[in-house]
Amino acid sequence: MQPTFFYMCTYIIITSHIILFVVQYATQKCIDFYYVTYYIVFVLICVTYKKGDFFMKTWVLPFNKGNAEQKELLGGKGANLAEMTRLGFPVPQGFTITTTACLDYLENQEYLNPSILTEINIAIAALEDETKKKFGNSQNPLLVSVRSGAKFSMPGMMDTILNLGLNDETVLSLAKDSGDERFAYDCYRRLLQMFGNVVFDMDHQLFEKIVADYKQTHQLVSDSDVTADGWKEVIVAFKVLFVKLKQRDFPQNVEEQLLLAVEAVFKSWNNQRAKTYRRLHGISDSLGTAVNVQEMVFGNFWDTSGTGVVFSRNPATGEAGLFGEYLMNAQGEDVVAGIRTPKSIQTLKKDLPKVYLQLKEICEKLEAHYKDMQDIEFTVEKGKLFILQTRNGKRTAKAKLVIALDLFKEGMITEQELIERIEGNDLEEALHPAFCKEDKKEKESWVSGLPASPGAAVGQIYFSADQAVEASKRGEKVILMRAETSPEDIEGMAISEAIVTCRGGMTSHAAVVARGMGICSVVGCENLSVDEKERVAYADGQVVKEGAVLSVDGTTGDVYIGELRLEKNNTQLPLKELFEMLDKQSSIAVRANAETEKDITTAMELGATGIGLSRTEHMFFEKKRLMLFRKLILAQTLEERIAILETLKEVQKEDFKRMYYVAKGHPMTIRLLDPPLHEFLPKNEEEYQETAEFVGKSAKEIKQKANALAEVNPMLGFRGVRLGVAYPEIYQMQAEAIMEAAVESYFELNNWMEVEIMIPFTTDASEFQRIRQLLEERIQEVFHKYNQPVPYMIGTMIEIPRACILADEIAQYADFFSFGTNDLTQMTYGLSRDDSPKIINQYMTHGLMKEDPFQVLDEKGVGALMKMAIEKGRKIKPELKIGICGEAAAHPDSIAFLKDYAIDYISCSPYRIPQAKLLLAKG
Amino acid sequence: MQPTFFYMCTYIIITSHIILFVVQYATQKCIDFYYVTYYIVFVLICVTYKKGDFFMKTWVLPFNKGNAEQKELLGGKGANLAEMTRLGFPVPQGFTITTTACLDYLENQEYLNPSILTEINIAIAALEDETKKKFGNSQNPLLVSVRSGAKFSMPGMMDTILNLGLNDETVLSLAKDSGDERFAYDCYRRLLQMFGNVVFDMDHQLFEKIVADYKQTHQLVSDSDVTADGWKEVIVAFKVLFVKLKQRDFPQNVEEQLLLAVEAVFKSWNNQRAKTYRRLHGISDSLGTAVNVQEMVFGNFWDTSGTGVVFSRNPATGEAGLFGEYLMNAQGEDVVAGIRTPKSIQTLKKDLPKVYLQLKEICEKLEAHYKDMQDIEFTVEKGKLFILQTRNGKRTAKAKLVIALDLFKEGMITEQELIERIEGNDLEEALHPAFCKEDKKEKESWVSGLPASPGAAVGQIYFSADQAVEASKRGEKVILMRAETSPEDIEGMAISEAIVTCRGGMTSHAAVVARGMGICSVVGCENLSVDEKERVAYADGQVVKEGAVLSVDGTTGDVYIGELRLEKNNTQLPLKELFEMLDKQSSIAVRANAETEKDITTAMELGATGIGLSRTEHMFFEKKRLMLFRKLILAQTLEERIAILETLKEVQKEDFKRMYYVAKGHPMTIRLLDPPLHEFLPKNEEEYQETAEFVGKSAKEIKQKANALAEVNPMLGFRGVRLGVAYPEIYQMQAEAIMEAAVESYFELNNWMEVEIMIPFTTDASEFQRIRQLLEERIQEVFHKYNQPVPYMIGTMIEIPRACILADEIAQYADFFSFGTNDLTQMTYGLSRDDSPKIINQYMTHGLMKEDPFQVLDEKGVGALMKMAIEKGRKIKPELKIGICGEAAAHPDSIAFLKDYAIDYISCSPYRIPQAKLLLAKG
Repeated sequence: MQPTFFYMCTYIIITSHIILFVVQYATQKCIDFYYVTYYIVFVLICVTYKKGDFFMKTWVLPFNKGNAEQKELLGGKGANLAEMTRLGFPVPQGFTITTTACLDYLENQEYLNPSILTEINIAIAALEDETKKKFGNSQNPLLVSVRSGAKFSMPGMMDTILNLGLNDETVLSLAKDSGDERFAYDCYRRLLQMFGNVVFDMDHQLFEKIVADYKQTHQLVSDSDVTADGWKEVIVAFKVLFVKLKQRDFPQNVEEQLLLAVEAVFKSWNNQRAKTYRRLHGISDSLGTAVNVQEMVFGNFWDTSGTGVVFSRNPATGEAGLFGEYLMNAQGEDVVAGIRTPKSIQTLKKDLPKVYLQLKEICEKLEAHYKDMQDIEFTVEKGKLFILQTRNGKRTAKAKLVIALDLFKEGMITEQELIERIEGNDLEEALHPAFCKEDKKEKESWVSGLPASPGAAVGQIYFSADQAVEASKRGEKVILMRAETSPEDIEGMAISEAIVTCRGGMTSHAAVVARGMGICSVVGCENLSVDEKERVAYADGQVVKEGAVLSVDGTTGDVYIGELRLEKNNTQLPLKELFEMLDKQSSIAVRANAETEKDITTAMELGATGIGLSRTEHMFFEKKRLMLFRKLILAQTLEERIAILETLKEVQKEDFKRMYYVAKGHPMTIRLLDPPLHEFLPKNEEEYQETAEFVGKSAKEIKQKANALAEVNPMLGFRGVRLGVAYPEIYQMQAEAIMEAAVESYFELNNWMEVEIMIPFTTDASEFQRIRQLLEERIQEVFHKYNQPVPYMIGTMIEIPRACILADEIAQYADFFSFGTNDLTQMTYGLSRDDSPKIINQYMTHGLMKEDPFQVLDEKGVGALMKMAIEKGRKIKPELKIGICGEAAAHPDSIAFLKDYAIDYISCSPYRIPQAKLLLAKG
Repeated sequence: MQPTFFYMCTYIIITSHIILFVVQYATQKCIDFYYVTYYIVFVLICVTYKKGDFFMKTWVLPFNKGNAEQKELLGGKGANLAEMTRLGFPVPQGFTITTTACLDYLENQEYLNPSILTEINIAIAALEDETKKKFGNSQNPLLVSVRSGAKFSMPGMMDTILNLGLNDETVLSLAKDSGDERFAYDCYRRLLQMFGNVVFDMDHQLFEKIVADYKQTHQLVSDSDVTADGWKEVIVAFKVLFVKLKQRDFPQNVEEQLLLAVEAVFKSWNNQRAKTYRRLHGISDSLGTAVNVQEMVFGNFWDTSGTGVVFSRNPATGEAGLFGEYLMNAQGEDVVAGIRTPKSIQTLKKDLPKVYLQLKEICEKLEAHYKDMQDIEFTVEKGKLFILQTRNGKRTAKAKLVIALDLFKEGMITEQELIERIEGNDLEEALHPAFCKEDKKEKESWVSGLPASPGAAVGQIYFSADQAVEASKRGEKVILMRAETSPEDIEGMAISEAIVTCRGGMTSHAAVVARGMGICSVVGCENLSVDEKERVAYADGQVVKEGAVLSVDGTTGDVYIGELRLEKNNTQLPLKELFEMLDKQSSIAVRANAETEKDITTAMELGATGIGLSRTEHMFFEKKRLMLFRKLILAQTLEERIAILETLKEVQKEDFKRMYYVAKGHPMTIRLLDPPLHEFLPKNEEEYQETAEFVGKSAKEIKQKANALAEVNPMLGFRGVRLGVAYPEIYQMQAEAIMEAAVESYFELNNWMEVEIMIPFTTDASEFQRIRQLLEERIQEVFHKYNQPVPYMIGTMIEIPRACILADEIAQYADFFSFGTNDLTQMTYGLSRDDSPKIINQYMTHGLMKEDPFQVLDEKGVGALMKMAIEKGRKIKPELKIGICGEAAAHPDSIAFLKDYAIDYISCSPYRIPQAKLLLAKG
């Protein structure tokens, strides 16, 4: 119906040449002027065409003229109906009133352009021809359904009106033709009901009450008990309702019915709910919605009819095979209404075996055609199957994964397509438990914070690590809630189901540890305050006492009072297959930040290709070791220290051996002691006393030492390699333990460990060189003692701006660089991660920061320093191994950066590995 | 005696040409080969000559063969004696045994090379010829003095032996020739005494005891009462002492006397005291010392003889005119010994008018020759003046300045020489009071710390700012001693004579504020601990109570218990003249960090060309304002805040007007509020209560707010422009106050203020742009209100690495950059300045850090970022004004950097300005 650009061009060219020819012939002159004019006109036409105002727009398109590509014009539903028609599936015939028409209507102050009206009439006429029925005719009347269908489906839009075309006259014809008066009046009353509700915004409960009242009066139980006469009575009551509420009759004119329905759909594009939804999901307001007008087929036509929804695969688990439900003798809305319980699609095999087989075949074909799991609406009319809609089905994260892998195996999609279909969040969601959606809808959250570590957990609340541990020993499921956590809490954290804190950001201690352990966690709940002495927590005027049951959703950041049910989750995820594919797509390895046997095992299961950051200080947090370490800090002389270090060495050595064992020969980067010493010292009177007894000093002395070691800005203090410079014996002990374990493991397992010793917090080549030398001395002693050398590397963490600037000098001595993006971001930005959430919130509110630089690498600032470091480092040592520790790097926006600079690996907490692999494969 | 290089070359050239000529003549061929050989030989000779092993070394040089340039070879004393001889001054004749001889002796296990001995004998013979005397002869014997003299004079070296050449025989001759037996034996006993002490290391008190005993026995009061016979008796006793202690006689052989004396001088080069001194002062061990042998002249030869020391100008004040003292009838050591009180040089006018005039003339000539104030030793023998030594005189810092300026005015030195002669420390010292050296020698310091702010002060000690203020009101001179100071203490600091803290480095709060105010201060006294409750301080087992008197030396970092006298100091320094000269030499301006009227006035007096950093928050530290500011922080709503800001605005406006008034139209950079808000909040219960009463809230609420605002790493927290983003009304108020004051000042003074509004802590162009816009709005309102615009600039502090990296973006919106080197160093180095002293000490001890990066700009790291920022900034905006705030930049090592990058100004605390100017002029 639309003259295409090509036709128009042809027309202009031919006509202008004719004019030219005539003029030249008449004047007997060759007039260049005309050529010029001609081209000017041509260009002008092209420009105006581009602007789209010049030619007739496409207002209406029959199903048999469109295809699946035209979603923009026809909406998702319309495009798929056209596609199915094109492919010869049994689709009731009809046409789509386009989104262009919708936009025109809305732009012209809700005035329906006459040309649209004309085209609708032409389309109806064509439909009448095809169906051999007449719209509004008392003989063999054409009935249609009217449905909205935008490019993206969204809630709040007008949905469906069935049986349109019925009125007091045509209903008689339908009764006669179908031979079932009850059926005809049932359809008619449905039309009134839907039309009233959808077009005139009349409360659907008013209609339902009329039906209910009627049934009560006549002592009927179900709608199917209502006779034709019954429906007639109901219809009269409905008509009265129209007059009463809307001061008008239900329109008997079927054209008017259709136009009112179409306009109602158009208008609904701009209702509040749809607008909000679009804003939240970033959908453009200028898309508009289409309207699909389709010949009715009746699922409520005797017992050989029915209607239902079917998925080509299970949308919850991803399992192959049809999944869905249907109702016999019903129209579409009955399935949703919940008045009758639908049957599983499998029973259709018995009810209508042929139809089932046909449906199955169609599902398979549609899936093969769309190369994805389909969500299909169907209706059976007297044993004949019609497909009313198909679309890519919504599904759980797990199902997404399973389906994508199956489709790949079935050869339907390529590896690359598979990877593109899976989102990072899907893997996150798939790996962690979640609460039932119904329960979440019902309950309001008590407090909210940052979703620091995904998952869902229910447990009893405790306000100190010790109490949490005790409760756990009693067999309770525990949730640890603290103002903020400190390394001391590590045991309590390890046994908790969830961790909740009042302060701290996505990279606070609680967040980092929880993610590392795969424990669900919500941090930085600003409204929450915890009174550890009184053992209560307050928020929003509500007080929660120790032992109370809470539900924590680490995926959304919500905390609920009471218990929410967890979703069942039995599917084994085919991670290994996935990882193989992902790894093929990326040259950047993914390692884990892990130091316990458990974490390393998890990391290996989740596809880690090594350990990128093993924080040796975490080994000192267990109580007994902590006490020993405190004794070390409190020691007055080198001799005392060396004696304690001897014990600690044996402890660490055994740890390392166990770690190597589970890491199975994968490379492992072990970071020497990093945090400021005061982090290890006790913090309250009780702990002073306890420590005092253990180390044989007075509590006062210990308090004094703790105060003396306290720092104004601990982040910029006495930590990392600075400890190594001041107490070389500690670093030497660690190197000894690492290498003795490596040699002994080699003897036991006959497998080299790729040990990478990492010196943290370097700012200068000289300090690195000094420490390296001290370590090498000890390492050579170890090799000599065992008479067996093993390979090792010594490198450094690049986490201070100065180290980036002097990377060329440092690279002269370092075997590898590992960027610590958290610390580097803190210093480059002058922003403490502990204190940042408030500030970042402010900046985001004012649009001065797009993303939290601790979550997404700040490429302009921090990234520039990293580039400098990489370039300088590789200039000196082209083979320099370079890794990045910190989740900020594992973000879609940073992937290009990682690839451009040929980073060797990134390292993140174990549960983030699959996501990181996916991102790398996608990038 | 040494064949010079020139002679040697001539010799080689001639002899080789002769050989060549002979060979060519004999063979009748022109042999190129010989040319080649000749040149090879020539080069080889040059090389070996350079190594100094080939030719005969210079062992001995007579005074009349040397000059002042040969200090390396002859030592300072020898070179100057040679120079004076060359110029015809009345110098007793003699020769110098060179440093080369000394080194040869020491290298050969203290074996005196026979060739040295030979040369000494030749030199003695020459001296005998010139003086017509004979060394060791019983007739007319030659007597000499022997003195050490290295290139740099140093304590611990052997000094002087007079009258060498006397023995039992020659003393008779001396008695006869002089006609004064007592004089001869006095000389002889002096020789024995000095020889025994200097050469044989015999305790000088043993000799003195013998003299004292003799005088007691014969009831004599003074040495001059001892007769010739008396001295003979003493000499016998001395001889006995030699035998008793050293098992040998005093050497009667005069050659032996000379050699022993020379060897003793050589050996003393390597004694412990000299070695330590050299190590501390960076003097090379391979210089060696020379020995000067000089004919004796006698200051103890009757009443027309005498000896003394004279300075050509006053070494304490720099005043012109002779300054010095002398003793009639005395030998050198009598002046020093303190047995008789020397007379002022002025009385010599009466004693020996001719000699005085001659001495005056010689002093003037020597000063003119050496172009510097001279320290001259002289002896008068029977009315005849001899000059024994001259050297550039030591002087106080003040004298250095005055003398240099006078010499310049007298045309003796150039401006450039003047500038080179003055050291940064001199200016520092000259500007501040100091303790008497005698008192400092006697007393041992109680504790020591970092010399944070120079000067010396005595006062009574107080441990809190409030108590200090009260004591000051009572009229006491106060020393404030605290664990560390905080902005709250500002009032107490302002009235103190000195500030002492236990913690913090050279850039801690106490140090920065004290330097700014020119108050003497010692910080980071590690051994000191303060108990503010008990009002006592402990260190080294000593307890000092409130009110006790202490003396604080901020120049050395020492604190003394009790009172030390201050040096008198009445000279007015000719700073203005100096500054004019200095400013001519450098294109880099020097501004001050100052915000009070007093500081700005001081800064202007000390030559500031503007204010480079005016910290507006300092205006809030005065008690009443602090309370108001606390109320602002504790306000719940924007309305409350705006009401308080209205009051604060008027206060600040008046402040600014006063500041502009004293700054007299010089440019002034005003930094908007920078520190974290919690710095302003109270810190203990008492203060909570006080604040609570003022703001009308409960102490608990205030404590909660303080806790809520507390930060883990305040340095990286909610401060600077981040406050402006969160509370734009505060920054807007400040901009309004600044500009209203500027307009009103313009009306009153008819003089533009060059106001530069500085936004601190920028990390991104967007935040700067936003704040700039907010400020501009308010500024335009001000101009509109007064109907008078005035010029202004808006720029930013560059103090975060990210700001350096993104300087090009920021420069698009900023009118100027001012580097905050303290903060930039903290972040670039990952090193908190508050926590750094301990770490830096460690690093310096291990040689891993050469200088404290907070005191000397870390050019490699921090400097690289600054370079980046300057290049990026000027690329976008070539006219971008660039300054540096922070004393680290005003260091000799950084001057080249400042010049290379065309920094417009540096800004430092007022009392550092002269030093900074000097450094810039020198660079």
